[in-house]
Amino acid sequence: MFDPITLRFDAQGLIPAIAQDARDGAVLMMAWMNAEAVQKTLEEGQVTYWSRSRQAFWRKGETSGHRQRLVEMRVDCDRDCLLLMVEQTGPACHTNRRSCFYTAVRDGAEVEIMSPEKPAA
Amino acid sequence: MFDPITLRFDAQGLIPAIAQDARDGAVLMMAWMNAEAVQKTLEEGQVTYWSRSRQAFWRKGETSGHRQRLVEMRVDCDRDCLLLMVEQTGPACHTNRRSCFYTAVRDGAEVEIMSPEKPAA
Repeated sequence: MFDPITLRFDAQGLIPAIAQDARDGAVLMMAWMNAEAVQKTLEEGQVTYWSRSRQAFWRKGETSGHRQRLVEMRVDCDRDCLLLMVEQTGPACHTNRRSCFYTAVRDGAEVEIMSPEKPAA
Repeated sequence: MFDPITLRFDAQGLIPAIAQDARDGAVLMMAWMNAEAVQKTLEEGQVTYWSRSRQAFWRKGETSGHRQRLVEMRVDCDRDCLLLMVEQTGPACHTNRRSCFYTAVRDGAEVEIMSPEKPAA
């Protein structure tokens, strides 16, 4: 049996979780979970993070509708990082871009490589 | 110009960095960098992390030969996480598996989904 308590959480009781699009492998975002968020995510099949700024559960997409359905959770060798294979509804980023990693460093400068998605008509 | 100092480091002066295979999008590992490791990585084109356990720079592959050539560095919207697109030589994981994320949680149990690579003859 998998018990979230066996993961290695940091001093704040958190573990980083990387969300990756299960269809094409795009890395969408990185956020944090506590043991209860891990448990909720597995039970509900929808991703819930822990918001460090709000100190509250953050059920991804609860207000935006941009949910993440959990396809598979993976644990790394050190048990201190999670990889979430997800099916993303809409953009993952709060800027309406598909991924939060839309800025590349090229020739020493920052370049925006992804545009905000247009809202559905 | 991109200056690593403009990133949002944590209280220990570190930022998480996700390494993703630039060829096929596989997420290989997550480790940490300080501002100097970010600078070194950009200058040398080879990935250098900061080892929290050893409190020292960790030039990926220095002893194992399993280096990571930096193809592109990306910064997330909050500037508190990096995505490294890399060309990985050999396995990324110290267990000789291609990725550190070789354990999946399926039906409430942990399942190993990746075998160690055989050493080159």
